[in-house]
Amino acid sequence: MNVFVIGLGLIGGSLALDIQHEFNEVIIYGIDTNEEHLNQALEIGIIQQKAAFSDLNNADIVIISVPVDTSLKLTPKVLDEISDNTLVMDVGSTKEDVCEIIKNHPKRRNFLATHPIAGTEFSGPKAALKNLYRGKTNIICEVEKTAFKLQEKALDIFSKIGMRIRYMDPKSHDKHIAYVSHLSHISSFMLGKTVIEKEKNERDIFDMAGSGFASTVRLAKSSPAMWAPIFEQNKTNVIETLEEYIQNLQQFKELMLQDNFAEIYQEMESTNHIKQILNGIN
Amino acid sequence: MNVFVIGLGLIGGSLALDIQHEFNEVIIYGIDTNEEHLNQALEIGIIQQKAAFSDLNNADIVIISVPVDTSLKLTPKVLDEISDNTLVMDVGSTKEDVCEIIKNHPKRRNFLATHPIAGTEFSGPKAALKNLYRGKTNIICEVEKTAFKLQEKALDIFSKIGMRIRYMDPKSHDKHIAYVSHLSHISSFMLGKTVIEKEKNERDIFDMAGSGFASTVRLAKSSPAMWAPIFEQNKTNVIETLEEYIQNLQQFKELMLQDNFAEIYQEMESTNHIKQILNGIN
Repeated sequence: MNVFVIGLGLIGGSLALDIQHEFNEVIIYGIDTNEEHLNQALEIGIIQQKAAFSDLNNADIVIISVPVDTSLKLTPKVLDEISDNTLVMDVGSTKEDVCEIIKNHPKRRNFLATHPIAGTEFSGPKAALKNLYRGKTNIICEVEKTAFKLQEKALDIFSKIGMRIRYMDPKSHDKHIAYVSHLSHISSFMLGKTVIEKEKNERDIFDMAGSGFASTVRLAKSSPAMWAPIFEQNKTNVIETLEEYIQNLQQFKELMLQDNFAEIYQEMESTNHIKQILNGIN
Repeated sequence: MNVFVIGLGLIGGSLALDIQHEFNEVIIYGIDTNEEHLNQALEIGIIQQKAAFSDLNNADIVIISVPVDTSLKLTPKVLDEISDNTLVMDVGSTKEDVCEIIKNHPKRRNFLATHPIAGTEFSGPKAALKNLYRGKTNIICEVEKTAFKLQEKALDIFSKIGMRIRYMDPKSHDKHIAYVSHLSHISSFMLGKTVIEKEKNERDIFDMAGSGFASTVRLAKSSPAMWAPIFEQNKTNVIETLEEYIQNLQQFKELMLQDNFAEIYQEMESTNHIKQILNGIN
């Protein structure tokens, strides 16, 4: 099985590692505009061979794991190159635009839109992890538009690397993911910014910051090259979540100004309910 | 050594466990208004004996680990009860009010204001952990107002349980901690609230939420009984941090509305600097 991974970062690299581990006789080919990443991926054993776009006609599977703006440009080009039996999967964090851009492509049935929800705040091939996807959710969009045999091929991979599948239309995906992922990243980045701006003396931050702070600002380490395009593509949904979040923060501030700490207690107590929701998440 | 712990939650309970482990011939006495917590603490081995306020004259050390509003009421009463050689330490997350309230107490020199910066989002005696404090920072305020021999006693304990000490005035403590701890809790609670409000269908949240979301809302599991009084006591500082945070979020939203994703990229890139700051935190 010839698997081509375009974009050898955390997400693509981790998929490559798991696929190699779960399948016999698989060769992973890597494509990346970053030559250093290509070489690192080869050294670490994420890929077996460097490849070019012109090699894609030999691919059984192509995984597109690049920033979501690049994916919009690459996906149609990849579909132009592949053979009739190749499965092409995009694994980006937004799904509406990529589904839209290839909806009339003659090879639409070779494409599957997926979002494996897993990751860390790190990036690049060295951030790739074995078993990153085990027990995690993969959202698949517009599954009915993919050829049945290629659906099966994809499900076989996701099942072997331990993912559970949920089907969703791209619009709903982008709306929900704005709340449970994109907003978290903004809240974290802005928290980091607020503290850095205020605390010019870093030694003071460092000494007083505990594990709670570390946990809340962890996502502020994430790659801007990955996240700026996500916010851009999911602009409408993200702005909506951001407005609701700001409104809740303002209301909290108002309650403080009114010395209404009984209501603040209530707010926190009802939000404690997040415990039950989070119980299933690592 | 007779150590009395008043308030047998995560913080007091964990201190009791470590002190027992590091010192020979220590007896831990527990005081708590919650009878169930007292019994649990006895069963788990956090304390050896239940005690009452009237026993405090036998104490070598008293640790006050209760919500910060309760601490304001309890600390002067504890100082009224103790002998001349007893060390009394409060371990709450705010320091200005407690230092103020006992400043003219005849036993002021028996008191040490401390803030061991450690914890989890859980509470109660069952949440107590061994080695919770190892490698963590302890902020000590107004050290010069504590009797020298009692300072030494306290430092010996903190050194044996693995904490590093920083000295700070109570005003500075409360100001800095608002940024690196109190604000994180509000951002987390309001993030949890925003998502719960929007996503009535919890199954959708649960399925799509990854480790990033879990990390950012972890603190929204925290105890309202502990946190509402902290926000109340540190009101001025917390409102200031909240205003700056809201302003940064609003500016981010404005940049999105203006489609200025180049600037958004820059903002995120400069906040990535938090990596270096966080490197020393677990």
